[in-house]
Amino acid sequence: MREGISVAEAQAHVLEAAPILGAETLSVRAAEGRVLAEPVDSTRVLPPADCSAMDGYAVRAADLAAAGPGGEVALPLAYEVSAGGVAPRPLEPGEVARIFTGAPLPPGADAVVIQELVETDGPRVLFGSRAERGDHIRRAGEDLAMGDRVLEAGQTIGPAQVGVLASLGRSVLSVHRRPRVALLSGGDELVEPDGDIAGGRIVSSNSYTLAAQTRAAGGEPLYLGIARDDPAAIEARLRAGLHADVIVSSAGVSVGDHDHVRSVLESLGCRLEFWGVRMKPGYPVAFGRFAAQTPGSPGTLVFGLPGNPVSASVTFEQFVRPALLKMQGMRRVHRPTLQARLTHALDKKPGRLHFVRVRLDCEGDSLLATSTGNQSSGVMRSLSDADGLLVFPADSTRLEAGDLATVQVTCERALWRTDRGFEA
Amino acid sequence: MREGISVAEAQAHVLEAAPILGAETLSVRAAEGRVLAEPVDSTRVLPPADCSAMDGYAVRAADLAAAGPGGEVALPLAYEVSAGGVAPRPLEPGEVARIFTGAPLPPGADAVVIQELVETDGPRVLFGSRAERGDHIRRAGEDLAMGDRVLEAGQTIGPAQVGVLASLGRSVLSVHRRPRVALLSGGDELVEPDGDIAGGRIVSSNSYTLAAQTRAAGGEPLYLGIARDDPAAIEARLRAGLHADVIVSSAGVSVGDHDHVRSVLESLGCRLEFWGVRMKPGYPVAFGRFAAQTPGSPGTLVFGLPGNPVSASVTFEQFVRPALLKMQGMRRVHRPTLQARLTHALDKKPGRLHFVRVRLDCEGDSLLATSTGNQSSGVMRSLSDADGLLVFPADSTRLEAGDLATVQVTCERALWRTDRGFEA
Repeated sequence: MREGISVAEAQAHVLEAAPILGAETLSVRAAEGRVLAEPVDSTRVLPPADCSAMDGYAVRAADLAAAGPGGEVALPLAYEVSAGGVAPRPLEPGEVARIFTGAPLPPGADAVVIQELVETDGPRVLFGSRAERGDHIRRAGEDLAMGDRVLEAGQTIGPAQVGVLASLGRSVLSVHRRPRVALLSGGDELVEPDGDIAGGRIVSSNSYTLAAQTRAAGGEPLYLGIARDDPAAIEARLRAGLHADVIVSSAGVSVGDHDHVRSVLESLGCRLEFWGVRMKPGYPVAFGRFAAQTPGSPGTLVFGLPGNPVSASVTFEQFVRPALLKMQGMRRVHRPTLQARLTHALDKKPGRLHFVRVRLDCEGDSLLATSTGNQSSGVMRSLSDADGLLVFPADSTRLEAGDLATVQVTCERALWRTDRGFEA
Repeated sequence: MREGISVAEAQAHVLEAAPILGAETLSVRAAEGRVLAEPVDSTRVLPPADCSAMDGYAVRAADLAAAGPGGEVALPLAYEVSAGGVAPRPLEPGEVARIFTGAPLPPGADAVVIQELVETDGPRVLFGSRAERGDHIRRAGEDLAMGDRVLEAGQTIGPAQVGVLASLGRSVLSVHRRPRVALLSGGDELVEPDGDIAGGRIVSSNSYTLAAQTRAAGGEPLYLGIARDDPAAIEARLRAGLHADVIVSSAGVSVGDHDHVRSVLESLGCRLEFWGVRMKPGYPVAFGRFAAQTPGSPGTLVFGLPGNPVSASVTFEQFVRPALLKMQGMRRVHRPTLQARLTHALDKKPGRLHFVRVRLDCEGDSLLATSTGNQSSGVMRSLSDADGLLVFPADSTRLEAGDLATVQVTCERALWRTDRGFEA
């Protein structure tokens, strides 16, 4: 087991250990937000036949050869074809047919003239200009041919993909499973949100924050409850978590006399891969894994996060979230980062990377980063107000007002520099 | 009613008409992703009492005045206080107490010395350095005082907000309602995805795409089904939609003889505000509103979108989505835009703004935009492959390879220029 590693080393360890989960078959509706485990090829031809792209008149282009500025051509209206309809018979030379968008082209017709270019005179239609063969016709298979690859494995199912699948009549899909994430809190001082806070007890808010973070990252949270500071209680709950893909324990993986989680994990056969990451908030992070419970299936991953609310949330962001995204088959697993200009100086000791909770504001074309206030690891308010986490590098001791710094964007809306539509 | 207006004018009309919906009370868990309709103030003091920020020893700082490089101070261990525990009696001068993170400070103690700085010798604790009063103590109310404003109206409930609310023991919230969006398809050629496509019929994929877009924008889709091209059938379905906040009809608001939706809407009392937006795909867009059904409640908004799948989806993006976000109380309602360099030239006629489906790729520090292929409004594949919509301005006729253009980002992951963590 390695101790006191950097954030980047710890992320690399976690991502190497996180398996891509197997596939399950879901209805298209239930698969929204999931990642395709196999490609989808077309089983249909779209459009199914040559059809009109516009409302107008189906013609034989040769019949309009004489139309032009010099004179109109008048042709008899033979019949009408609506979308979903079928021509009653082929179009004979010298005839035209009324046709609507999406309707199949009558046999014999080779062009469509849009209705805005035409006048009618009783049963006759007057054409003032020529047509080219193929005008306003969508060819059979132009949008999709049989066997065309329409979606690749690894694509996320969003609205456009749902539309493609519906147009193929496809109702089920193979997508990667969501990770099941067992959440454990530990500490004799903790009570549930509806519990009695007399005597200095505090609400176990971490499991609520971490459950929401798990859902936001596409995982399914399972709540193991609050374990008392007692090895037997901790062991019973951790055993229940072994059926999950990931166990996230907040509190209890530190070095205090009362921190039993680590020793219980090891006694259950968990191999700890690292303990301690050179970051603040959040130094006391542990990561390990169990051997597979059943042959061929990956073993449960275990994250031991610090107990302070902000530390728990920030370490989840850095380590658990990327793992959960990878497990679902996603290719981009890190939060986006951008450069922002600090509005004030920051100081710290060297040695640990600090994640400073910041608000982002626009000034002209540049972004400004400002601390959201009290950076104590107990103050969730300054996390709740933050658009992102400013990266104050491990070896740096001072950032000046006006310095450019990297900000990890945790609230994607902060990327919207303006909320204008556009002028064009 | 105005005709043939610009995209920006149409968006301004829609956003002015869209009401901010009223509030409903939900459990915190059910409120994830919603927007707060009223602020939340603290009803607790956090920490509830002065407590230790670390695992270590509670002391009276004055007792360690003699400790330093010159010599150690040895003091007797009086008792232990764990998190969730209470000191059995005040700490007398000359005594120290074992204390753990989050545990309440014993009366009489005024500092905590972290355990790494201490050695123990049987019942005595050896201190090699002085302590300052207040060291490693978190003061009562330091994180939250009674009455502190913790969340503002208009904030979106995400994981950090859930954590803040849990720590207050708060279980319910007042948030803005989600808009109910009734979706109608129209056309005799349409069948449901499991329907028979013989005879050139096509799947009504729009309602699936638009339902997914509605859900992604926080709305609740209600499906009114496929209306035949018949005024009575259309009227029956539209009447059912009047109970929704928004009606979205795809197809049937054009100028063809078979497009009855517009006349039925007007006969039902809908006031059309505009018809026709100078854009491609998607010119034939209509927007209107009904008078309020009940006094004081806003009337149903109606969007008539074109029938071609890409046109329907792109016009939903431009007009329906911003309205749905505003209705939920969100302040930023437009997609983010960025500048990207075209990898190839584009041509068009002047007069309409074109939204060109593009893929975004990174090259060094700049973004490249490349058409995803066939831009026909029937080809959902080129929308499904797109990261965004390149804005080809209405009056422009040519963009050269290498030109910078505005891209509206529809897939927020495209904003992630790299998927590195960071080195720091």
